Amino acid sequence: MAGSTFGNNISITTWGESHGKALGVVIDGFPAGMKLTEEDIQIYLDRRKPGQSKFTTARQEGDKVSILSGVFNDVTTGTPISLMVENTDQHSKDYGNIATAFRPGHGDYGYIEKYGFRDYRGGGRSSGRETIGRVAAGAVCAKLLQELGVTVCAYTKSIGDIKIYDFDLSERDNNPLCMPDPTAAKKAEEYLEACMLNHDSAGGIVECLISGVPAGVGDPVFEKLDAKLAGALTSIGAVKGVEIGDGFVASKTVGSINNDKFKMENGSVVKLTNHSGGILGGISDGDDIIARCAIKPTPSIAQAQKTVNEAHEDINIEIHGRHDPVIVPRAVVVVEAMCAITVCDAMLSHMTDRIDFIKEFYKK
Amino acid sequence: MAGSTFGNNISITTWGESHGKALGVVIDGFPAGMKLTEEDIQIYLDRRKPGQSKFTTARQEGDKVSILSGVFNDVTTGTPISLMVENTDQHSKDYGNIATAFRPGHGDYGYIEKYGFRDYRGGGRSSGRETIGRVAAGAVCAKLLQELGVTVCAYTKSIGDIKIYDFDLSERDNNPLCMPDPTAAKKAEEYLEACMLNHDSAGGIVECLISGVPAGVGDPVFEKLDAKLAGALTSIGAVKGVEIGDGFVASKTVGSINNDKFKMENGSVVKLTNHSGGILGGISDGDDIIARCAIKPTPSIAQAQKTVNEAHEDINIEIHGRHDPVIVPRAVVVVEAMCAITVCDAMLSHMTDRIDFIKEFYKK
Amino acid sequence: MAGSTFGNNISITTWGESHGKALGVVIDGFPAGMKLTEEDIQIYLDRRKPGQSKFTTARQEGDKVSILSGVFNDVTTGTPISLMVENTDQHSKDYGNIATAFRPGHGDYGYIEKYGFRDYRGGGRSSGRETIGRVAAGAVCAKLLQELGVTVCAYTKSIGDIKIYDFDLSERDNNPLCMPDPTAAKKAEEYLEACMLNHDSAGGIVECLISGVPAGVGDPVFEKLDAKLAGALTSIGAVKGVEIGDGFVASKTVGSINNDKFKMENGSVVKLTNHSGGILGGISDGDDIIARCAIKPTPSIAQAQKTVNEAHEDINIEIHGRHDPVIVPRAVVVVEAMCAITVCDAMLSHMTDRIDFIKEFYKK
Amino acid sequence: MAGSTFGNNISITTWGESHGKALGVVIDGFPAGMKLTEEDIQIYLDRRKPGQSKFTTARQEGDKVSILSGVFNDVTTGTPISLMVENTDQHSKDYGNIATAFRPGHGDYGYIEKYGFRDYRGGGRSSGRETIGRVAAGAVCAKLLQELGVTVCAYTKSIGDIKIYDFDLSERDNNPLCMPDPTAAKKAEEYLEACMLNHDSAGGIVECLISGVPAGVGDPVFEKLDAKLAGALTSIGAVKGVEIGDGFVASKTVGSINNDKFKMENGSVVKLTNHSGGILGGISDGDDIIARCAIKPTPSIAQAQKTVNEAHEDINIEIHGRHDPVIVPRAVVVVEAMCAITVCDAMLSHMTDRIDFIKEFYKK
Repeated sequence: MAGSTFGNNISITTWGESHGKALGVVIDGFPAGMKLTEEDIQIYLDRRKPGQSKFTTARQEGDKVSILSGVFNDVTTGTPISLMVENTDQHSKDYGNIATAFRPGHGDYGYIEKYGFRDYRGGGRSSGRETIGRVAAGAVCAKLLQELGVTVCAYTKSIGDIKIYDFDLSERDNNPLCMPDPTAAKKAEEYLEACMLNHDSAGGIVECLISGVPAGVGDPVFEKLDAKLAGALTSIGAVKGVEIGDGFVASKTVGSINNDKFKMENGSVVKLTNHSGGILGGISDGDDIIARCAIKPTPSIAQAQKTVNEAHEDINIEIHGRHDPVIVPRAVVVVEAMCAITVCDAMLSHMTDRIDFIKEFYKK
Repeated sequence: MAGSTFGNNISITTWGESHGKALGVVIDGFPAGMKLTEEDIQIYLDRRKPGQSKFTTARQEGDKVSILSGVFNDVTTGTPISLMVENTDQHSKDYGNIATAFRPGHGDYGYIEKYGFRDYRGGGRSSGRETIGRVAAGAVCAKLLQELGVTVCAYTKSIGDIKIYDFDLSERDNNPLCMPDPTAAKKAEEYLEACMLNHDSAGGIVECLISGVPAGVGDPVFEKLDAKLAGALTSIGAVKGVEIGDGFVASKTVGSINNDKFKMENGSVVKLTNHSGGILGGISDGDDIIARCAIKPTPSIAQAQKTVNEAHEDINIEIHGRHDPVIVPRAVVVVEAMCAITVCDAMLSHMTDRIDFIKEFYKK
Repeated sequence: MAGSTFGNNISITTWGESHGKALGVVIDGFPAGMKLTEEDIQIYLDRRKPGQSKFTTARQEGDKVSILSGVFNDVTTGTPISLMVENTDQHSKDYGNIATAFRPGHGDYGYIEKYGFRDYRGGGRSSGRETIGRVAAGAVCAKLLQELGVTVCAYTKSIGDIKIYDFDLSERDNNPLCMPDPTAAKKAEEYLEACMLNHDSAGGIVECLISGVPAGVGDPVFEKLDAKLAGALTSIGAVKGVEIGDGFVASKTVGSINNDKFKMENGSVVKLTNHSGGILGGISDGDDIIARCAIKPTPSIAQAQKTVNEAHEDINIEIHGRHDPVIVPRAVVVVEAMCAITVCDAMLSHMTDRIDFIKEFYKK
Repeated sequence: MAGSTFGNNISITTWGESHGKALGVVIDGFPAGMKLTEEDIQIYLDRRKPGQSKFTTARQEGDKVSILSGVFNDVTTGTPISLMVENTDQHSKDYGNIATAFRPGHGDYGYIEKYGFRDYRGGGRSSGRETIGRVAAGAVCAKLLQELGVTVCAYTKSIGDIKIYDFDLSERDNNPLCMPDPTAAKKAEEYLEACMLNHDSAGGIVECLISGVPAGVGDPVFEKLDAKLAGALTSIGAVKGVEIGDGFVASKTVGSINNDKFKMENGSVVKLTNHSGGILGGISDGDDIIARCAIKPTPSIAQAQKTVNEAHEDINIEIHGRHDPVIVPRAVVVVEAMCAITVCDAMLSHMTDRIDFIKEFYKK
């Protein structure tokens, strides 16, 4: 089954490996008539770029995006938008035993069993560079959402055990960890430095806040808005868990607390609390949508680790090279992208939900 | 967008509302040649049936399944398997203000905004009865998996704050809460009784263990096996979070611990630990697959709650009637079903992953 | 691959065999708020019912439809509409060597190779009764189209060599062959009687006229409106060819003739001719859409035919029993149904084609 | 709805406009382990290249393909194969009133109504250059088919009224019209020269012969192998009709003739005739598969034509420039490509049709 396509009305297909000629995405079904320039997309790609602090790899990935199709005179035409980033840093090198080892925490073993062989250069398709296509497509969808009054904003919620405490979104871009709390960011930096000294790595949690989605978006069964978000977020490499609203905490509370009460406020239906995270029964309830995902520690570490190679021999492996000690900060924009694509797609779906919508459209 | 279909090679389409004439599922793409009787499916449906203890509603739902198509002489034909359960308990009644109120914790408000009106009888499509189709299809897929040496087994991991401690799977069916630990089950029963006295409800966690999936099943990007599982599980009503393997705990640990080391054992590649929960890079690693989901407290409670009605008036509501004080035990078989369908579908996909597989099939 | 589902926004899944318990269809994604009763659907099903003339089998198939879900108080709810027709005429009988023979002109041999065995009772899934689900779904979509000012009307264009000449649509229902030309109908009846005397069968052409679709519906590449129609029509059993507009005749003409010239008329863009059949570049051009399909002679004939059986022996076979000498008249409503579903789906798609449509919908 | 993706197991997504930076295709789900070089693809692209005779436009389109991903050391990796052809001939020019006119026979009017505006440069997405992606993907699928013993071969069946008579496939590449009959080719050339003198254009028929597909490939309902072929072929620009086997002729014959009789020959089931065109009931019957499509005359002609522009004014238009007087010869390889993709996809599907296939694969 072809698994590189995501979405229904707007559907994205990503392609490319870490060390191939290029990576990219085709966005199909995107509506015509929206202003779009490479700069709109570059801003998002720059946020996932490495080499921006000591906590991200020193690789210099230019990651300049080109719009190859689907845009004419800076306006989307309704036909597939093809976006490409060339790999400038794809020099061949000696991968040593990494080329044949099953790196612990990586998908190498599964890849070999699935495909019979693998592109070992930089992880091939399983590389974090695969997210370039997602982020580029996310930028385009985020722009459409913006025109509809919807904002999508992700940030680091925790790194290791260190959680944000005094939430101040304006601080997110003032530290290399994308934490909207400078005090927590400071502690997290210290924690990461300790990890790096041990040749070890850390994980964390990314949270995403989606504001402005009206009630009524989503679907009651398999295409529940939260199910789509959960699938979208878990499809990001290294994500091991997803929550909507109170998430696992909801499993420990009682109904009388967890149920958000509705009330009228200035002529609108609002909720007194938002334990639901903006989604009830798979459909948006008009409140902020809150999704959260757990990201495991970077599997590539310089410590010696026992493992097995393709010849099925027990070996030791040390993974040197340019690896982020924590994936979380660079995953923030990827989470944002996947949420933007998912919500955008669902909002388009909603337009055909009712006969009266359709008759109004066709003026009948 | 049509959202009642799930799966690629094997694809299920569920239909039906709480108080319609019937509910059911069409399983399309199911391979020909498997023995299948109504009894195979009934066993699973009986596990989700209410009225089996004081913790499940006293409704008498016969829930007898009929195979309407796709099976000839007790063998699947390869054509769509249509399964139906008639609603025998669909007597009309006075729904009072529930018919027009936005019940807190329910999807009513979103439904109204999405569809313009709603079938208020028993929750309509958002009823737990919608899972009948999932469970019936899950039974069929579980049978196929069994023939491939794969078992799928879910159980209650926790209710409220009470977790299982001494894991003993053989105990799962000895208590009404499906907890594989009799001591924990006892405590959980006491906790639930207290909830019921308060006219309140509880949540919990269901875990699913999938054994026997060989390495190499899954996909590297949007159709990652864990992404499909996360989407499948979050599509179950009341699920607010999903974890694979260590899940959120992985976000707090370090790479040197979280990375499962590989070694050779009796000529096979095995892992020393299973933090990954059997999936790495979206592809099975040969170990047990472990998925977990958080289920919120039953939203229907008899306590008075503030809310709003369709006329946009602030009102009070008390939801009396037959409601489970906890959804968790009845969700166990639903979780099992969604995992079985997901894994079954992925195992079929794997068959076309390689040229050598294809050439072997076509004997070229 | 599951192949019993058709359509994107509105998606239908048919199920059922000739001699199973029942046949049916699930219509998913159908918009909420449309009046719908069983009578609306029954009218279409009655048109495909056999036993209505000497040219259709004498079987008495009641074919009474039940709406099992998706409709509340005679209004569609937006959730899956499940429609079922019970098989009342499913008595077991001795199929003789038909049970194991590869009937010429039938799919038996392919079925055996594909599935390993087959449900030989009445053709199983390959029976014409499979179209019940299509027709039922077509009735529902035709009703929606009607509300949008679109009509879909099919009729018999030819039987054998006898074509309609004086087109008069009001005559279609005045003869058993659905020919909108009483003179041609008379000749065709005579031709069919001659075929029947020879224990032989005939084919013909069905044409469908779709009026009222505005320009701009369809898609430029794989989901071209004509490509969808061609796929939809060829998916009807016994169809061997499809044409849009002038079809094969267009291959023999020249550009200066085949190009329909545009002109302004009463403030509207119109075409002077309609060689295109209402579709240019995959997108509707505002003119009547014209599709046509060739239907082969009924393969079941009472003449002795050479063939092979499952034991790979050369045998002779005579297929007695209740078989239409021509499929065409009963296919008319099936063609209408598939066109209605296809156009309905495409019209919903069009609603999300442009940013200005979306912003208008979300009032931004 | 996103409509630039085709196929299930192997799924292709094409992108690009006539005068954008580049055009291409992403082939997702293609199995791992097949040798593949740019040369394999270039051979196919060169066959659709213009400028090869007086009957194709004199444009010099280099159309050099690059493999951007999915191939490592000349072997497919199982991940998306991204193929790109840069547009070297995209100089801006003055399109005059073509930029705003609705060219007769073209999709311009529908595009404007659908998208609100259009990329008028060379037809944008509706250009014949859109087929580059199809042909490139077709080359890849044809190579896979070849490894399975399946060949796909298309040729010109007729141009205008001139049909091939003495079929000799070895002659196909000896004339610029791809006609496997030199005498017919000669007459067709004379006919085309006459058309060109009149500033007019011609159409024709392309036929495709697919050999080596075993019986049992395809599906009984909406994914019938012929339905997929019909949809695939009609999705090619300018195709107005499709036939399988005898096609429209079958509508005029009788069952006793049209039914292909089976017999045993050297231990195999064979047919005495092939009126079915290799497909019965949607499933291959082991014989050669024969598909045919009607292609309309090139709509761009230099004759003055009446039409309307975007300002809704009646105007006259003459379309000068580099246009093929007949599309047919260049469509041959496109037809071959679409057939190869369709059959390849269906053959992969067949692998999961039966429990015994699956158990054999998983050695259970």
